[in-house]
Amino acid sequence: MFFGSDNTAPVADGVMQAVLDANRGNPASYGGEAAMEEVRALVRRAFDAPEAAVYLVPTGTAANALSLALHCPVWGTVYAHEAAHIEVDECGAPEFFIGGGKIRRVAGAHGKMTSKTLGDALAATPVGDVHASQPGALSLTNLTEAGTAYSAGELGALTAMARDAGIATHLDGARFANALVSSGRSPAEISWKAGVDVLSLGGTKNGCMGVEAVVIFDPAKAWEFELRRKRGGHLFSKHRYLSAQMLGWLRDDLWLDLARQANRRATDLARGLEASPGVTLLHPVEGNMIFARLPRAAHERARAAGAAYFTMSEADDAVIARLVASWSTRDEEVSGLLAALAG
Amino acid sequence: MFFGSDNTAPVADGVMQAVLDANRGNPASYGGEAAMEEVRALVRRAFDAPEAAVYLVPTGTAANALSLALHCPVWGTVYAHEAAHIEVDECGAPEFFIGGGKIRRVAGAHGKMTSKTLGDALAATPVGDVHASQPGALSLTNLTEAGTAYSAGELGALTAMARDAGIATHLDGARFANALVSSGRSPAEISWKAGVDVLSLGGTKNGCMGVEAVVIFDPAKAWEFELRRKRGGHLFSKHRYLSAQMLGWLRDDLWLDLARQANRRATDLARGLEASPGVTLLHPVEGNMIFARLPRAAHERARAAGAAYFTMSEADDAVIARLVASWSTRDEEVSGLLAALAG
Amino acid sequence: MFFGSDNTAPVADGVMQAVLDANRGNPASYGGEAAMEEVRALVRRAFDAPEAAVYLVPTGTAANALSLALHCPVWGTVYAHEAAHIEVDECGAPEFFIGGGKIRRVAGAHGKMTSKTLGDALAATPVGDVHASQPGALSLTNLTEAGTAYSAGELGALTAMARDAGIATHLDGARFANALVSSGRSPAEISWKAGVDVLSLGGTKNGCMGVEAVVIFDPAKAWEFELRRKRGGHLFSKHRYLSAQMLGWLRDDLWLDLARQANRRATDLARGLEASPGVTLLHPVEGNMIFARLPRAAHERARAAGAAYFTMSEADDAVIARLVASWSTRDEEVSGLLAALAG
Amino acid sequence: MFFGSDNTAPVADGVMQAVLDANRGNPASYGGEAAMEEVRALVRRAFDAPEAAVYLVPTGTAANALSLALHCPVWGTVYAHEAAHIEVDECGAPEFFIGGGKIRRVAGAHGKMTSKTLGDALAATPVGDVHASQPGALSLTNLTEAGTAYSAGELGALTAMARDAGIATHLDGARFANALVSSGRSPAEISWKAGVDVLSLGGTKNGCMGVEAVVIFDPAKAWEFELRRKRGGHLFSKHRYLSAQMLGWLRDDLWLDLARQANRRATDLARGLEASPGVTLLHPVEGNMIFARLPRAAHERARAAGAAYFTMSEADDAVIARLVASWSTRDEEVSGLLAALAG
Repeated sequence: MFFGSDNTAPVADGVMQAVLDANRGNPASYGGEAAMEEVRALVRRAFDAPEAAVYLVPTGTAANALSLALHCPVWGTVYAHEAAHIEVDECGAPEFFIGGGKIRRVAGAHGKMTSKTLGDALAATPVGDVHASQPGALSLTNLTEAGTAYSAGELGALTAMARDAGIATHLDGARFANALVSSGRSPAEISWKAGVDVLSLGGTKNGCMGVEAVVIFDPAKAWEFELRRKRGGHLFSKHRYLSAQMLGWLRDDLWLDLARQANRRATDLARGLEASPGVTLLHPVEGNMIFARLPRAAHERARAAGAAYFTMSEADDAVIARLVASWSTRDEEVSGLLAALAG
Repeated sequence: MFFGSDNTAPVADGVMQAVLDANRGNPASYGGEAAMEEVRALVRRAFDAPEAAVYLVPTGTAANALSLALHCPVWGTVYAHEAAHIEVDECGAPEFFIGGGKIRRVAGAHGKMTSKTLGDALAATPVGDVHASQPGALSLTNLTEAGTAYSAGELGALTAMARDAGIATHLDGARFANALVSSGRSPAEISWKAGVDVLSLGGTKNGCMGVEAVVIFDPAKAWEFELRRKRGGHLFSKHRYLSAQMLGWLRDDLWLDLARQANRRATDLARGLEASPGVTLLHPVEGNMIFARLPRAAHERARAAGAAYFTMSEADDAVIARLVASWSTRDEEVSGLLAALAG
Repeated sequence: MFFGSDNTAPVADGVMQAVLDANRGNPASYGGEAAMEEVRALVRRAFDAPEAAVYLVPTGTAANALSLALHCPVWGTVYAHEAAHIEVDECGAPEFFIGGGKIRRVAGAHGKMTSKTLGDALAATPVGDVHASQPGALSLTNLTEAGTAYSAGELGALTAMARDAGIATHLDGARFANALVSSGRSPAEISWKAGVDVLSLGGTKNGCMGVEAVVIFDPAKAWEFELRRKRGGHLFSKHRYLSAQMLGWLRDDLWLDLARQANRRATDLARGLEASPGVTLLHPVEGNMIFARLPRAAHERARAAGAAYFTMSEADDAVIARLVASWSTRDEEVSGLLAALAG
Repeated sequence: MFFGSDNTAPVADGVMQAVLDANRGNPASYGGEAAMEEVRALVRRAFDAPEAAVYLVPTGTAANALSLALHCPVWGTVYAHEAAHIEVDECGAPEFFIGGGKIRRVAGAHGKMTSKTLGDALAATPVGDVHASQPGALSLTNLTEAGTAYSAGELGALTAMARDAGIATHLDGARFANALVSSGRSPAEISWKAGVDVLSLGGTKNGCMGVEAVVIFDPAKAWEFELRRKRGGHLFSKHRYLSAQMLGWLRDDLWLDLARQANRRATDLARGLEASPGVTLLHPVEGNMIFARLPRAAHERARAAGAAYFTMSEADDAVIARLVASWSTRDEEVSGLLAALAG
């Protein structure tokens, strides 16, 4: 009964097998291996973006910080939701890679900024005033940190505001696959067709070992990204082990299957929680993360039964729990947790 | 007949098996997994350094840049050999992570700086003059970029000069294991006992997938390193796949066996080259790298026979070749290359 | 009738005379001139801080950014009031000089943070969590951006919280002299005796041409500051023209006279405004800045009469005005503005 | 008999008078004052560059570092003479402002790089290799650090090489006026017409208090420069005191008169030195700086007579002296020094 995080799940078989398959011979290093060509082709096809530049890095923080540094000038401000990973969970990596930029926190219920809250933040920026950090980039997160998904329309409205402000849009897609399969849309529809300029496409939380693709829809930025990746220490010499992971993950749509599996477990759990006495869901469940208020007694029973999940806060009568399903979450874990909570 | 680089070799069985073994359950992320405790203990034991802080990062550039940033202030100069990886092969990563520092190139035959050349570089630095970048750190490389090894005595003499100048010593040990087994010394004797403060201990080039240990002999710097690693985007969430590699590599002294194997092939090849008509070795062969002047005709024959190696320069009558053996180089590759060269 | 800003006032006679007096001979450059010794002695005596390190820089942004970079590590967060100059008026200079740090906005009425709001901000920082930027420094502003003054007790309470959190306190004193003469305290009582570690002591807005002193109460940081000042491009070669300004400003307590003069004009104006129909003061007037709500008609009359001041916002019925007095504001300007507003 | 440096000379009368004239009223701050319009017009006219962007900063290091950061990407290398101020006298400011760039030292006799030495340095840069810092900018110095002047032809040949390499050329003109009057050329001919993209035009060493103009010949870079200047802490609030200096300096060609005066004294001194027994000039004297080998005895006599100059090195039989004339150097100082040396 493990719902602690999707970043503690094992590597999916198809991904591990690809790594094993790559473990022979002496292919070119630093991304020159043939497998990287395949990865590039698969990403471009999946995103209907034949010109996109595609690069691999080992962590989500690297993907985000490099992507933001690629688009936000040193004097720029990144607009991000106040709960965004780049603001609260990266120890200042974006500011470091940008070279001293700022992040402005944008509010919004359920982990989403809105046209109103982004508009207010943009309007509060003194554009053209040399004393103020200038608009630098918009960073959205989908699946959001609250486990909700932006619709294509919501994304399009926000990126249009960014474009009007003369800035690019980055999408932190650490859980992009979960948002994607939940949306019923194509990858293109919730990325570049919705105005996204650069995407951190997360593999790690969805069955890989440690790999994220950065998809840059304007290939003119490709060489600059390569140099920034290298000087950030994120260019693998034995790069084939990154491309192998990504190849195994993308091939035969394994990434979508894994995300569907995780989302399904989360949906099942959410339905059960909604039916549990005293339990309240805090946000719509549109991916693989659930935030729920659990009565204290139920929480204690779950813990006693061996359930693992993260508590955001604990009070005498109730706790706020974050429950994350992964591709490896089993049906019995869901039913076991629900049974334990029910007592 | 592949002598292109040790960073294109496959992963050794013991390392890959450890990765497979780690692929179960939901251990803590971000280095909290039990395997990291084992790694820490193994490194401390190997280096006879029970207090050392030990961290894992995915690339050598990350290990070097983070280690240097940990020790060199923003206004500091790093003294490094003019052929050092940090100077010529990291696209400015050390300067970026330090926050604008400088690297001063120190000369020296066979890839080694000497007391004379380092002394000259230190003497040329206007210490206490606010207009000049101040001494920041010494960075040595062992095995050197020329395939030679510093003796413990040479290391001690250089690090003593650094200490007198009030600066710490970093050792880029991307091929530390190769230098180690060639030296007949203990790990401690060619690291902290010889005055090294922080070591980039390379696994990638010696049979791993992508992992380097940073060994900080003064544990007071540990927390700062952790923060710098995170903001550099180098902290793995599924960190167990780094610790598993390192565990498989260190356990039962596999790392030493792999290095010995690579060095043995290089030594065999070097002996054969020395006996080849017209071939000259440019540097003593003290690890797994050979730099040789090959007659043009011999070079053409080797290429025609399918031999792969890097040429530093090519002239009408001869080429300068870099030949690198790895743990996976086979005896037949050595004999095959020698036969081809001989014609 | 000029109340636009104190940074458009001319240079006071005593300061300009000192500059003229310095304009002979060939004294040492870069701060080695004898006048700098005098400045140092005068600052130390004024602050009852015989060990303090004292440096001059040309702008307030330089003084603040260098002071913060001296104390806040690269992974650190600076706590500052949401209206602080370092957050809204320096185009990201602190983040740049720190090397990628963050500023956390702390709320508080009348330009002041409180034990409650600072406490909340500190409590919201996940200390010891490597994913989060860590506490780096506290930055207070006195005179505040709202024209109010912190009492010695308020300062002491806030700096104690910083000390408990293991961080240093910077005081942005662009209008320190105005706060000082308003407080009835000694310089020491509202700086180091109240827990301030480093002070930006502003001369420019109080009768100088362009000079700020950085007073570092822990002299162990002196050399590092010198290097940071140089690499920031803030070390003057003809430094004597900075020290001359500061000498003329400090000598015979001219700085206090100038600040008293500015405050007196502001106080007179504030009294008149309070007595004006429909006018409301937004903050207590404790220095040389007034924030007032002016009825639209009164505002139009003032403008028509030639009054100059900054409007923060304008509505149909009223405007929010910022009115700043300087050492050069004349009594007739105050009475003239009041007469114009009265109609 | 002061030949220590031109940065210890007083402010010329015309400059100081302009500062005094500016000391009235409340003109706009931050460069919005009318005098800045005049400065801009004067610079544009002098350089025959009606579109050039013109900005003022207080120090040469600021002018250089901001100019280089404007043109050199974060992964870039600046090519500079090994004696260049940016390399040896700015404590890493260019690397800091660029955000981690590198400076490559280019050799060359008499303070000048040549087509050969620059060509070698460019050829040694692995363009298109992601592991290597890429060409970022060329930085020339005129008057050079050896007191020599590049001809327009020499400048044109070097900047053409930069243009071919796809990089911009910065000219450190801390003593541009001295080089200019010595060259017999127009300002345009030894700046933009010779391929210079951005010029640090030094006022401080030639009769000002502390002001340098940055002249950006491509005005598309203007806004970025303004933001970089602000976040570097180099934007003056009472900016009128910078523009006043520059106005007084440029008006009626005072800057040229001052430079001619300094050069004339240096030329006279050089002629006298050439005629002195045992004295050797190390470089052609083409501005206001002389480097000479003085017999020990002559040196002792000069010192005893009160002469002040900088010695680069001292040996038993001779010293290497740097002698700098300024606008304020008097004829008697020249004759007095020559008499003392002669004994």
